[in-house]
Amino acid sequence: MALILTFLGKSGVARTKIAIAAAKLLASQGKRVLLAGHPEPTFQILLGSTIAPDPQEIAPNLQVVQFQASVLLERSWDEVKKLEAQYLRTPIIKEVFGQELVVLPGMDSALALNAIREYDASGKYDAIVYDSAGDASTIRTLGLPESLSWYVRRFRQLFVNSDLGKTISESPLIQPLISTFFNINWTADNFAQPTNQANNFLEKGKAALADPKRIAAFLVTTADPIEVASTRYLWGSAQQVGLTVGGVLLVSSEANANLSEEFTPLPVSIITDSSTSDWQPLIDSLPNFEAQAVQAPKPIEIDTHNRQVRLFLPGFDKKQVKLTQYGPEVTVEAGDQRRNISLPPALIGRSVTGAKFQNNYLIISF
Amino acid sequence: MALILTFLGKSGVARTKIAIAAAKLLASQGKRVLLAGHPEPTFQILLGSTIAPDPQEIAPNLQVVQFQASVLLERSWDEVKKLEAQYLRTPIIKEVFGQELVVLPGMDSALALNAIREYDASGKYDAIVYDSAGDASTIRTLGLPESLSWYVRRFRQLFVNSDLGKTISESPLIQPLISTFFNINWTADNFAQPTNQANNFLEKGKAALADPKRIAAFLVTTADPIEVASTRYLWGSAQQVGLTVGGVLLVSSEANANLSEEFTPLPVSIITDSSTSDWQPLIDSLPNFEAQAVQAPKPIEIDTHNRQVRLFLPGFDKKQVKLTQYGPEVTVEAGDQRRNISLPPALIGRSVTGAKFQNNYLIISF
Repeated sequence: MALILTFLGKSGVARTKIAIAAAKLLASQGKRVLLAGHPEPTFQILLGSTIAPDPQEIAPNLQVVQFQASVLLERSWDEVKKLEAQYLRTPIIKEVFGQELVVLPGMDSALALNAIREYDASGKYDAIVYDSAGDASTIRTLGLPESLSWYVRRFRQLFVNSDLGKTISESPLIQPLISTFFNINWTADNFAQPTNQANNFLEKGKAALADPKRIAAFLVTTADPIEVASTRYLWGSAQQVGLTVGGVLLVSSEANANLSEEFTPLPVSIITDSSTSDWQPLIDSLPNFEAQAVQAPKPIEIDTHNRQVRLFLPGFDKKQVKLTQYGPEVTVEAGDQRRNISLPPALIGRSVTGAKFQNNYLIISF
Repeated sequence: MALILTFLGKSGVARTKIAIAAAKLLASQGKRVLLAGHPEPTFQILLGSTIAPDPQEIAPNLQVVQFQASVLLERSWDEVKKLEAQYLRTPIIKEVFGQELVVLPGMDSALALNAIREYDASGKYDAIVYDSAGDASTIRTLGLPESLSWYVRRFRQLFVNSDLGKTISESPLIQPLISTFFNINWTADNFAQPTNQANNFLEKGKAALADPKRIAAFLVTTADPIEVASTRYLWGSAQQVGLTVGGVLLVSSEANANLSEEFTPLPVSIITDSSTSDWQPLIDSLPNFEAQAVQAPKPIEIDTHNRQVRLFLPGFDKKQVKLTQYGPEVTVEAGDQRRNISLPPALIGRSVTGAKFQNNYLIISF
């Protein structure tokens, strides 16, 4: 299990430089590091080398990889075909080649996240530094296990309870028909099998996201007020998907620059921008990422004893946060992201008795 | 039908400023303009006003709107429920409320594109200026009609020709069962109906994308070599989805800055960065977007007489462009995007007899 680090912020080049410096720092401490980026020239130019879709060692303990969506999609396609062969008697898509598949919006995210999951599970790395897009799309990507698991739990139950779902699983007429086409008996239990497999992935992803020793983001900004506002927005949005934000990296040539107030209670480190011929000043100005991540406020705290859920939502004011209870779960909306809070058994089924927004926390009582 | 303009490039703040200035310029020329952005603070701060999910007039001829994915998703959900009610006898998802839906990666793109389509179709605007993310994800978004239509044409045929598809449409036993659950007779023709509806949207989207009077992007960059390299990459990637790039906006305080060589044959306009209190210098430095878009190289030219397809692929060298023919269509890969070329009847079924890469063009002979 690796520590997965990423950076959020508006300055693309600064963010990529910091990701490279962070990877170099961790490798110099003896950690086995994978530095991963997307196929855009900045990453390659700053690193000064071509980057392939498979990891290559560029320095002791330091490997680099490029998440090329078309290549990752091609490789995943074989897995999809295997799944089809497992569940369908006469496969339909076997004639479609991975090499002709086109990347659709959202696939880059899902494929990158899946690649990170696999590199993490390989046991080959102590740290994975991900030079992401660093914007709202990165937050959606890292939040995928959380958001997708809601769809699975909400829609599976609806289908199983529906007339269609019930008839399919109970009918003596439909069962034989289904087994003509599918390699499974379509009972509610069997229908649950593939979704359980998916759920297992998602639960692991959620557990990793909830652990600041596993996944943490850091904010990168200059002192420019517009950039600070954007970065604060990303900070709050990250909390909405359960992503820990460990600290702030302020890129500035002034040693006494100060943004502590805007980002309380996060530590703010001043980062020296440096040329790509000498990375050392930049590396030396980096904080201890692991120590900061562990001390950062947790995005969600559930206190069953006091029947309270506390959500850390910095960067938003009270008016920007909405709490509703339309479906079976409590929904919190902020920063163009909704979060359905999956409650522990002790709180499930209880109504919300009160909610207040205080010191960047939304405190919900049951 | 409106002219849809967007901007690609790495400098987020400069891009948003230019989008706002472009909207002001077009409105001052008497065009009815909709300026659309995403819910990120930069757009609101630069405009100096709060922006809602529905268009509001902020100046004569100028309306502003924010594409908030959670709101757009909520609204689309009602449409999805209507479709379900149309095709399914006992709807399953009717109990799920739009207000609890969580945004997944890729949805922001699809929802924004759909919103643009609707505003365009409303006939209320002569121009829609879209302050997009300006990166690879924007290219995927605008390329969605092209890429999705490949999936529809490839997979529909496979399904219709499959054992499963054939049995369903021919079996006297399965037809009555299906009509118990669905409001349709599942013949191959009827199955085609919903996909035809989708195809119709996609074909309209492709036609709009192919017309530089309808949709055009402009590149925004500084003279920084890393930014120039990124911008050239975006230029080439845009061609891969069929998006016309009309010109380059070079943000520079030096009046004699020059990037003509890097972006031949596009015109390069030098843009004066200005404060948000006086937009006029910035507005005055903008080019004539429509005139430039019409003169730009077309992403694809099909010459049936000479049996040639010419693809404009600037920013890539020969080694970065791959041509294959795995499936029924010719696939071109460049810049982490594949394009399956849907050929006209005169060329369908013919094998590729030759290909060369010359002056930024990939020329394929049949």
